[in-house]
Amino acid sequence: MKANLPLDADRLWSDVMALADITDPARPYTRRSFTALFLEGRELLVKRFAEAGLTTHIDTAGNLIGRLDGTNPALGVIALGSHSDTVPSGGRFDGIAGVATGLEVVRALRDAGIRLAHSIEVVDFLAEEPSEYGLSCVGSRGMVGLLDGKMLELTEPGGEKLRDALRRVGGDPDRLDTARRDDIRAFLELHIEQGIVLESQSIDLGIVTSIVGIRRIEVIFDGAADHAGTTPLGLRHDALVAAARTVASVRDVAEQLAAETSGYFVATVGILNVEPNASNVVPGRCRLVIDVRTTHLATTARFVEIIDRASTEHAVAAKVTRAALTTLSEGSPVTCDPVLRDALHQGAQSLGLSATDLASGAGHDAAFMSRICPSAMIFVPCRNGKSHAPEEWSDRDEIAAGAAVMLQALKALDRSLARPATSSDETK
Amino acid sequence: MKANLPLDADRLWSDVMALADITDPARPYTRRSFTALFLEGRELLVKRFAEAGLTTHIDTAGNLIGRLDGTNPALGVIALGSHSDTVPSGGRFDGIAGVATGLEVVRALRDAGIRLAHSIEVVDFLAEEPSEYGLSCVGSRGMVGLLDGKMLELTEPGGEKLRDALRRVGGDPDRLDTARRDDIRAFLELHIEQGIVLESQSIDLGIVTSIVGIRRIEVIFDGAADHAGTTPLGLRHDALVAAARTVASVRDVAEQLAAETSGYFVATVGILNVEPNASNVVPGRCRLVIDVRTTHLATTARFVEIIDRASTEHAVAAKVTRAALTTLSEGSPVTCDPVLRDALHQGAQSLGLSATDLASGAGHDAAFMSRICPSAMIFVPCRNGKSHAPEEWSDRDEIAAGAAVMLQALKALDRSLARPATSSDETK
Repeated sequence: MKANLPLDADRLWSDVMALADITDPARPYTRRSFTALFLEGRELLVKRFAEAGLTTHIDTAGNLIGRLDGTNPALGVIALGSHSDTVPSGGRFDGIAGVATGLEVVRALRDAGIRLAHSIEVVDFLAEEPSEYGLSCVGSRGMVGLLDGKMLELTEPGGEKLRDALRRVGGDPDRLDTARRDDIRAFLELHIEQGIVLESQSIDLGIVTSIVGIRRIEVIFDGAADHAGTTPLGLRHDALVAAARTVASVRDVAEQLAAETSGYFVATVGILNVEPNASNVVPGRCRLVIDVRTTHLATTARFVEIIDRASTEHAVAAKVTRAALTTLSEGSPVTCDPVLRDALHQGAQSLGLSATDLASGAGHDAAFMSRICPSAMIFVPCRNGKSHAPEEWSDRDEIAAGAAVMLQALKALDRSLARPATSSDETK
Repeated sequence: MKANLPLDADRLWSDVMALADITDPARPYTRRSFTALFLEGRELLVKRFAEAGLTTHIDTAGNLIGRLDGTNPALGVIALGSHSDTVPSGGRFDGIAGVATGLEVVRALRDAGIRLAHSIEVVDFLAEEPSEYGLSCVGSRGMVGLLDGKMLELTEPGGEKLRDALRRVGGDPDRLDTARRDDIRAFLELHIEQGIVLESQSIDLGIVTSIVGIRRIEVIFDGAADHAGTTPLGLRHDALVAAARTVASVRDVAEQLAAETSGYFVATVGILNVEPNASNVVPGRCRLVIDVRTTHLATTARFVEIIDRASTEHAVAAKVTRAALTTLSEGSPVTCDPVLRDALHQGAQSLGLSATDLASGAGHDAAFMSRICPSAMIFVPCRNGKSHAPEEWSDRDEIAAGAAVMLQALKALDRSLARPATSSDETK
């Protein structure tokens, strides 16, 4: 890897580590959105943003935004960013590496005496991870006009509504329309890969081609909670037997479809709740949640059709009922912008870094941002593909390399996006 | 059913209902062992025992015992009883019907001016249901000398040891040897069937032939909690996939063995815990508990051998590890005493009640008592076989019929057990 990067790797690293230190000490690394620790992290970000010459504000969707006006503000904004919240017992890099990168890119420009034509914004999106309110990507939804009134009524176990939590962190649920942006010309997000492709192939960087659409499906089986000793097998209505056979079907069907599709496809049963979950009681009720991710919506539709049929058969065999499949959430796959991807590839090439095209199996704020502007992502390697866990790790130089490529791409895009658009028809 | 019974059906019913009223109002019918509600129920029992002329005490194993001396105390004791604790959100009959029956039998004897030769004891065994300390049949274990020092160290989630809880309810963990009895000549227990055989065949009573041995086996699968979006299927170590296929195997193998065996056989996965149980994380760890019940130990051994092999195969296929199967608890099947069973059959016949032989798929205090004395059980019908649930139900007359048969059997046994034993060799 090239050590002579056009930015300060140590300064960037110290920001990431400083944020990591702001954690629930009982379960590192935890900085859940909307908590006091989260606000403490943002205080630090506000301080660093200001030191870098950015003017900061929190928009009505609760996003922390640091802004540096360009020499030609009429050109609009190029935004960089990610999120500073974590999953419970998560890692030190997921999210914050992208926010710190945006900050370091701005500082590197200033150190080099460069002022861009476009205004630059560094964004810490609110609550990218699934929050206690049952919603993820709260801030980026808000920025693209998709945070609706129904979502604001979501309530966390303690009884607080998302509407009130949003106000508590500086947002304004009654003026969400002002969070919706139309002045952003490009969005770039750096993130750890959360997979093992880059590390296993010794590639410096991944340029994301598309971000999977995620569909979460709830399946509930209702049987009868009978005595496990006195109820003969033939008279049982065992909800777990139906649920277990469905878990097996999800895996079998996912393997079949992943092998058949040209795109990316995975399906997972991550949640399975058993009631009453007592050793001497036949399970009367089971709830499972299937997480389906694909770059091709048709594959998800095919999967759902097969699982709908299979789980019904399992329910009938176990003499239990299966309610209609409930879609808890659904996002379409997103294709990253080819102009931005090209800028990232050229940036990597200019610095002598290796880069490969990759699909993202995880959802990101960039997927929402792509609804209002060209968006792209750069992935940096992470050790053993581990993420959402305390052992999540990326090296200082790996993050710095990604940040440097983003800096190069930003400078190139500031020039190319400032030029009047030429349609491909005209140039043919 | 014969209405003219030699006891007071309404008085018996009112005891059952009075105990049912002592419940956690938020989740009827709950009177968990060791709680304030449990002690309130015992206060009521102590009062009713005293009114019936019984002298009461709590033995060192925490059993509440009401005693009426016989005319010839040297003959020893005939004991009747069951338990007054409940499962969470349980029913109004499981356990307490047997305690109330013992009490009513004593009152009926007194009303009829009958004094037996044997001393009679009515026992409310401590904590028959699985308690928060992870142990069931605490009191009957104690009475047969099987409540050991290791069990006393069991701790409930709040941190209290069983040793201290036992002291709190009037027992004495340091003098458990005195709870061990050698003066009991017979034990009779009435219980609701908790199954549907009697009701579906319109039979008044079940005379229990044997009580299943229960083996509880813990199976733990350890995989890796990877990101559900970024981890390709082929690189996963999904503990739930292995656990789910094991649940299916348990059901399939149980059906096969139940069809093959001449005895009673059921197996159930009632507990399945998934970690971290989040929709976007591949399950890293699963724990399941298999409950196996049989009247033939060899069938359990065969079952365990097959499931050991099958679950290992499922672990290998899912690339997870499976620890050695852990036996959490194990009880041998028990054969009820033929002399006592005969007395119960004759009692039913004398009252014009229909009775059938039945195996008990549930464990009972009688199973432990059979280690120190001849023991037998009488089952009364319960609606739809429902038990361990608020809708658990037996009719007033159904319980009274069982109690009347117990009274008849008790009178007959008092006579027959008082005669010097004659060996079958001598009579041939």
